[in-house]
Formats: sequence, C-alpha cells, structure tokens
Amino acid sequence: MKKKVAIQGIAGSYHDVAAQRYFEGEAVEPVPCDTFREVIEHVSAGTVGMMAIENTIAGSLLQNHELIREGNCRIVGEYKLRIMHSFAALPGTRAEDITEVNSHPIALMQCRDFLDTLPGAKLVECDDTAGSARWVAEKQMHGHGVICARRAAEMYGLEVLAEGVETNKRNYTRFLVIARPDLAEHMQQEAVRNKASLVFALPHTSGSLSKVLTILSFYDMNLSKIQSLPIIGREWEYMFYVNLTFEDYTRYRQALEAIIPLTNDLKILGEYEQGKQSI
Amino acid sequence: MKKKVAIQGIAGSYHDVAAQRYFEGEAVEPVPCDTFREVIEHVSAGTVGMMAIENTIAGSLLQNHELIREGNCRIVGEYKLRIMHSFAALPGTRAEDITEVNSHPIALMQCRDFLDTLPGAKLVECDDTAGSARWVAEKQMHGHGVICARRAAEMYGLEVLAEGVETNKRNYTRFLVIARPDLAEHMQQEAVRNKASLVFALPHTSGSLSKVLTILSFYDMNLSKIQSLPIIGREWEYMFYVNLTFEDYTRYRQALEAIIPLTNDLKILGEYEQGKQSI
Repeated sequence: MKKKVAIQGIAGSYHDVAAQRYFEGEAVEPVPCDTFREVIEHVSAGTVGMMAIENTIAGSLLQNHELIREGNCRIVGEYKLRIMHSFAALPGTRAEDITEVNSHPIALMQCRDFLDTLPGAKLVECDDTAGSARWVAEKQMHGHGVICARRAAEMYGLEVLAEGVETNKRNYTRFLVIARPDLAEHMQQEAVRNKASLVFALPHTSGSLSKVLTILSFYDMNLSKIQSLPIIGREWEYMFYVNLTFEDYTRYRQALEAIIPLTNDLKILGEYEQGKQSI
Repeated sequence: MKKKVAIQGIAGSYHDVAAQRYFEGEAVEPVPCDTFREVIEHVSAGTVGMMAIENTIAGSLLQNHELIREGNCRIVGEYKLRIMHSFAALPGTRAEDITEVNSHPIALMQCRDFLDTLPGAKLVECDDTAGSARWVAEKQMHGHGVICARRAAEMYGLEVLAEGVETNKRNYTRFLVIARPDLAEHMQQEAVRNKASLVFALPHTSGSLSKVLTILSFYDMNLSKIQSLPIIGREWEYMFYVNLTFEDYTRYRQALEAIIPLTNDLKILGEYEQGKQSI
C-alpha cells in the first residue's frame, strides 16, 4: 500500500519531490491540494502532510507557521531540498522555437539569467511549476517552455532542454513533515529528537525576549531560527516562532521548564530529527 | 505637480490606499508596478515607493525585506492600514445575481464568512484586488462580484453592495515608504526618528543573538519585530531583521555602537517616525 502524503500542488511539484526524498524507500502517493489550508485539513483527517516553511519559491510561508499552529498539527520531521529547475518543452522542441515560458513567478525570477538567453520568449506567470508542465503537455502547447522540476517534466512527458537553469545554485527550501498529534506519537516512538519548534507570546515589555533567549543559551540550546509574527486581532503584539537544536534532550526539557514562567501560551509544535539535506 | 509613488498593483489597490493616506494633503499619483522588484527599480531611479512588509494579504513579504536590503533602499516612514474589504459589482447587480466572485486569493480567504452567504457563487482567484475590479468593469462582467478596496470600486465605476466584509475586523497591513538614500536624506531633514530597522548577520555560535538583544535591552531599546532569514548561498546561516523603537535617539546610536562588534554586516535600513495607524 502506498503512503499517502498531502502536498500543496500536484504530482511533480517540489513538494512532491521533497516527499519522495524524505520517505525514500517507501512508495509515496502524493495527495494534491490547491492550498496549504487544504493540506492541513488532510492532516487533521489523518494523512501525513509536507509543507514548505522557509524558502524562496512558494511565497506566503509566514502563513504556514500560523496554519500549523492553528491546525494543531505536530511537526515530525524536516527535509531541506535543493531547488534545481529544469527547462522543458514538448518533445522535439528546440530552444530557439520557444515563444512563451510558463511557470510560477518565483521560479521564473530564479531563472532570470537563463531566460535572458531566450530573448524571443514572453514570460507568463502560472499558479505552479508542475501545473504549467501538465498544461503544456495536455494542451500540446507547441513553442511553450516550462520551468519545473525534472520529475514534473518526466511525469507529463515533456523533454528537458536544459538542466539546473536556476541562477543561484545554492537555493534550498526547507519542508516540514506534519501529522496529527496522535499519529505523530506513533510515528515518533523510536525517533531521534534533536530539534524543536516552539511558539510563544511575550508581554510587550522591554527585554522580555532577551531574557528568554539568554536562558535558552545558558541551557546550551542553539537557536537556528526566530521569527516574530503579529497576533491577529491584537495588533502589533507578537508571537515568536523559535527553532532550537540541541544534543541533550533532557537539557532541552529543562530549558523549556525554565522559560515557561516568562512566556505566554508556549506551545511545542514538534520535536524531531534535524533534517537531511539534498545535494 | 503630483507626487509619484511606485506601488505594486494598480490604482485602487491597497498599496495605493496606503500611499494616499500616508501622503495625506499631497496629490499622489501611483506608479503601478507588476512586481515588488519593479517597485525597487523605480525607487533606484528616484521615485518614492510604498511596499507592504508585514501583513495578511499580499504573500511573500519575507522577500520584500531582502529586496529592500539588496536594492540599497532607505526606509523613510511606515503606515499601518486597516484592510477593509468591499464587495462590489456592476451597478444594478443584486447579491443574489452573483455567480462568480473574483479577487486575490488571500482577500477571498479573509472574507470567507461573507462569501459563505453567497452559496451560488464560484470563487475565482486573480492576481490582485483592484485588477479584478477593473476587469469586471471593463469587460462588463455581469453576475461577477469583486472583493476589493472601496477606492477601487469607485475608481472603476462598480457599485459597492456590502462594506467591511472581512471576517476579522482587526486586520492590518504595515507598509513601508522607501526612497533612494540621497533623496531620503533630503526628505528626512526635519523628521522625527523614533524607530529603526536594522539587519545584521551573526556568527553561528550558541547565544550570539541573546547577547545582542540583551545589550539592546540594557540601552532601553524596545524590540518591536525580529525575523531571521536564511542567507542565500550560505545555507542555514541567518540574517536577522530587527525593528527597534526608542525615545532617545542618542541612546539608540549608542546601542548601535555597542552591538556592532558582536554582529557582521550590520546595516541600517532606515530610521523613521513610528507609523500612524488607520482606524
């Protein structure tokens, strides 16, 4: 039986690629979703989800923090995917025949140097990379090029005309694997836990954050990410999303105990193994 | 002569509304741009720009931090706009005639409760709110409703069928006013400066951020926002974007001097007056 993983986008998208890599060795069946909110709905119904959280390709990732918190999802893992774009078209197309290139606006932006070598091509923004590939293939759009993952090109029968067309070769996206808390417990029974994602609110007094971070550093926690997000409905009050990495799980639990009295509404979004990174 | 302000989107967009409010009393002519990058290009050429930086409507705001830093723009002011959506259609349309509603996906999401009262209407996502209004007006799309700013409805000759249709009435977006550094100097000669936006990198050692924040709190700086962003090309190293508010400008400059030795590449993105907020 295939492992179902809810992703934003369709098969062949970068979310799909990340899911295939994270669950390497298992047969993964992506459950395509139009929106990140829909991914959360699938997770609430018991499917595992894969969600970009920090990247340069999908936009709106601040919202994904909120969705995970509100949706009461548990983070059970992460994967850092190098985004490597391919340039594809209907089989037999030559680069000089391309009159229009379709893709997600950020993918187009990331391939600007390559696209500048196709002066005759009009750039047309679409909702997603894999969707553009499917559309060009299904509608037999001759003369159209697509920026997408190699997986999408292969899946929809396009020919890859050029590989690695992104300007910056060191372009990574971090994806989170999320699950419903009861299922997460089950999945994580034997898992390594050396990273945690926390969210908390702070009273709006000078120095309240520095106190919390100082305590965390006394307990040898490494802060790998911090982000303040305004609390909707309480303007310009902030929630803080923090990622910690650590070697000693017990020390981490002690650090948590130590900061709880200085924070409001502290919530553990997940404890998991620090992610592998694709090359 | 009208004051030109580069905005993402077209006249009638929320960027336009924010520009009109910030420069109240001056005649503002929006310079429409397709992308935020284009806004930065206009700013480099000498036009003032208005750019959403923290909100729940436009997506990708993390990128705007990067664009401002890379584009070497100076922040000269901010405006916090309450996002109040109107529901508009061609004049004479009744709510029960609506078969399709067009708008930006996040605007649609923010009006979900209202849209649920229109069960017959299909929701169709478009690039922007004002663009949807213009399209429905120009193409005379009978039976189409639009979620947009009242300004857009009035500008393109649509009739407002319902006002304040956003679910959460306390929905604000913070916009930054940006200018080329030489022009910023000129604009800010007599300006109040009680807020600053900084960006810096930190060595990846445990506690490096807590040291910097502790020093800032010793100097009575209020941290109103903090955000780590991965540095492109140096994976999982981070830049920190920090907003400070303060009463004493001299103390602020002293605080800066005190943290410089502990940070890398510290850059002041702007010193400006803390923004007014629309009601």
